[in-house]
Amino acid sequence: MLIANAVLADGTQRHIDVKGGRIAALLPAAATVPAGVDVLDLGGALLLPPLVDGHIHLDKTLLGLPWVPNQSTGNRVADRIEAERKVRAERTAPEAETGSNLVRQVVASGTLHMRSHVDIDNQLGLRNLHEVLKIRERFRDLVSIQIVAFPQSGIVRSPGTAELLDAAISEGADLVGGLDPVGIDGDLDGHLTAVFGIAERRSVGVDIHLHDGGEAGIAQLLAIAERTTAAGLGGRVAVSHAFALGSVDTDKAARTADVLAKAGVAIMSHGPGGAPIPPLALLHRHGVKVFGGSDNIRDAWSPFGNGDMLERAMMIGYRANFRHDHELQFAFDMVTGAAASILGIEDYGIAVGAAADFVVVEAGSVAEAVATRPRRKLVIKSGKIVAKDGVPVV
Amino acid sequence: MLIANAVLADGTQRHIDVKGGRIAALLPAAATVPAGVDVLDLGGALLLPPLVDGHIHLDKTLLGLPWVPNQSTGNRVADRIEAERKVRAERTAPEAETGSNLVRQVVASGTLHMRSHVDIDNQLGLRNLHEVLKIRERFRDLVSIQIVAFPQSGIVRSPGTAELLDAAISEGADLVGGLDPVGIDGDLDGHLTAVFGIAERRSVGVDIHLHDGGEAGIAQLLAIAERTTAAGLGGRVAVSHAFALGSVDTDKAARTADVLAKAGVAIMSHGPGGAPIPPLALLHRHGVKVFGGSDNIRDAWSPFGNGDMLERAMMIGYRANFRHDHELQFAFDMVTGAAASILGIEDYGIAVGAAADFVVVEAGSVAEAVATRPRRKLVIKSGKIVAKDGVPVV
Repeated sequence: MLIANAVLADGTQRHIDVKGGRIAALLPAAATVPAGVDVLDLGGALLLPPLVDGHIHLDKTLLGLPWVPNQSTGNRVADRIEAERKVRAERTAPEAETGSNLVRQVVASGTLHMRSHVDIDNQLGLRNLHEVLKIRERFRDLVSIQIVAFPQSGIVRSPGTAELLDAAISEGADLVGGLDPVGIDGDLDGHLTAVFGIAERRSVGVDIHLHDGGEAGIAQLLAIAERTTAAGLGGRVAVSHAFALGSVDTDKAARTADVLAKAGVAIMSHGPGGAPIPPLALLHRHGVKVFGGSDNIRDAWSPFGNGDMLERAMMIGYRANFRHDHELQFAFDMVTGAAASILGIEDYGIAVGAAADFVVVEAGSVAEAVATRPRRKLVIKSGKIVAKDGVPVV
Repeated sequence: MLIANAVLADGTQRHIDVKGGRIAALLPAAATVPAGVDVLDLGGALLLPPLVDGHIHLDKTLLGLPWVPNQSTGNRVADRIEAERKVRAERTAPEAETGSNLVRQVVASGTLHMRSHVDIDNQLGLRNLHEVLKIRERFRDLVSIQIVAFPQSGIVRSPGTAELLDAAISEGADLVGGLDPVGIDGDLDGHLTAVFGIAERRSVGVDIHLHDGGEAGIAQLLAIAERTTAAGLGGRVAVSHAFALGSVDTDKAARTADVLAKAGVAIMSHGPGGAPIPPLALLHRHGVKVFGGSDNIRDAWSPFGNGDMLERAMMIGYRANFRHDHELQFAFDMVTGAAASILGIEDYGIAVGAAADFVVVEAGSVAEAVATRPRRKLVIKSGKIVAKDGVPVV
């Protein structure tokens, strides 16, 4: 199969020779199309690598159910945890069903790789993990789903959770998560000892939700960096949100960035609406890997979100005050190449030997695609069309 | 003509009897449909009043042209003003053409009323006003366009601009604008004397862009309130952006809100990405009218934006940390009823005697419509379908 007349992110026009679900060759667009080959002519449309969602909650979404109003009685993380318990008790469809609705929707928007956090606590046990494992199995030929065992109710304050996180890894979770060691668990050392203990013992990566702001948040980032180095886990640890980096002065943020970069701790941002956004360009300049994710999508936490990572790149760019093309390209990298690298996706990208996975849009450039978020004309997985004009191809 | 089975914002299902482009009656959905009447059956879809854009720049957009990268060399308002001069000099289509592209796009998304700022300075003269007057005339049966004579380059620092603003009013502009009296013009009294002098002499309203933050911004808000009262212009003055209200503590914001409310000064917010958002709920509680607008749409200032006011309500809600249904309804009001009231749109709303102007979407509630921004099934103006599934009906 030959994908003809594709414009790549660098502006060059190419024919892409696809064999066995992989990119066999990138030919000049002037090359003669050999006879007897299936040709998909893109007519100069923009061909991009697939989108990567570095932070999604497949078990939380209520997508496909009738509208569920937000129930939170306050604006603290703890209030939202409580509200979610109520919503969870009243949900009328299993997580595997609503999560599958979300996977179908995000695939149609071009996402083929994701990291999903999955709630684990001493009431839920591994129930949500089992639901998300069903989703992963169901869509295994379409998307890669990396699972983080996420202690949504804390670890120290929720006895038995550490053991459940450990069990989750043995049952198929890929990373161990954490949550505001101070703000929620009230025990920095206890929380991190549990998280990094599992990571070392099981040899898995770490991804910690950190909402705590200001100096308290910075102190936790530094502690996470120290633990990462001590455990030899550099390059396998991420902190999601890290609002603290956006709530301190530039000097403090820069010094913290240097520590994170040296330790190999990445930062995930979804371009938060009601919280400070970390200084993404500064972090990048100081060598910190930054990547993007959806976070909540129509769930007990947030009414917003749809899983479209091109829209997410726009939101990240909007919040980061990005306006120039190189800045929009940076936001795009956060939801493609940078996220793929942090998730350890092999064979990713538009290069010979890589998987023939693509998103095709009508746009003159990556910057324009981020700003305008055009309809996805085609989503291609292993050389096969899996969605067309925003609708999954069954 | 009868619009049957419309679900209104309050959840009730109605038939709407339309006569002479107006709502003649709101009938219970159980009412028998009379024979011989044209019926448009909405089948339970949500029928909303038309969207109102309280702040757009029809003369700035480059919509429809090939992508123009942002040229700004810095992040200050003054840097962006300079960058715009370059882009303006190089634009390959007149403002009337690109602005018309934008009007077509926003009508298809359900906006039927807007307030457009139009750049006026001593280089441009009234050129852009004349371009936007062409647009207003071209679309006069479709949308109402209120024009603000906007001194984008300042007044005091741009000699001759005050006279041009005055001339703009006599040539058809509806309000006089202003811009950062201190931050750009460096002369609070001089700037406001010019703006309010024109407003009083011509008996027109005022809409001032205020980006200046912190205490300096608050001082300018208080001065604008004082001038408003002195000129007897309460209810006819708005301040756009007012980032300062989001950059001071709650007490200071509340005290300023009381002054604005008493003077009758409204606040417009587009849900800024890279600047603090005013505390909208607090302003509302203190009696300040707040409304929404797009601001820049794919122009020399911003690569973002598309003029969809339902998406804008989402962005406002996202930035304001709104999550509950009543908060999403409030964001919706900012781009419908509240904006219509501030713009002085007569015969607006879903009520007997009002214009038969509607937007129809598939959503279970206003809150869901804001969060999910569904495709506009129908846009109806004076009882006639003017757009269908997001595409204008010629």
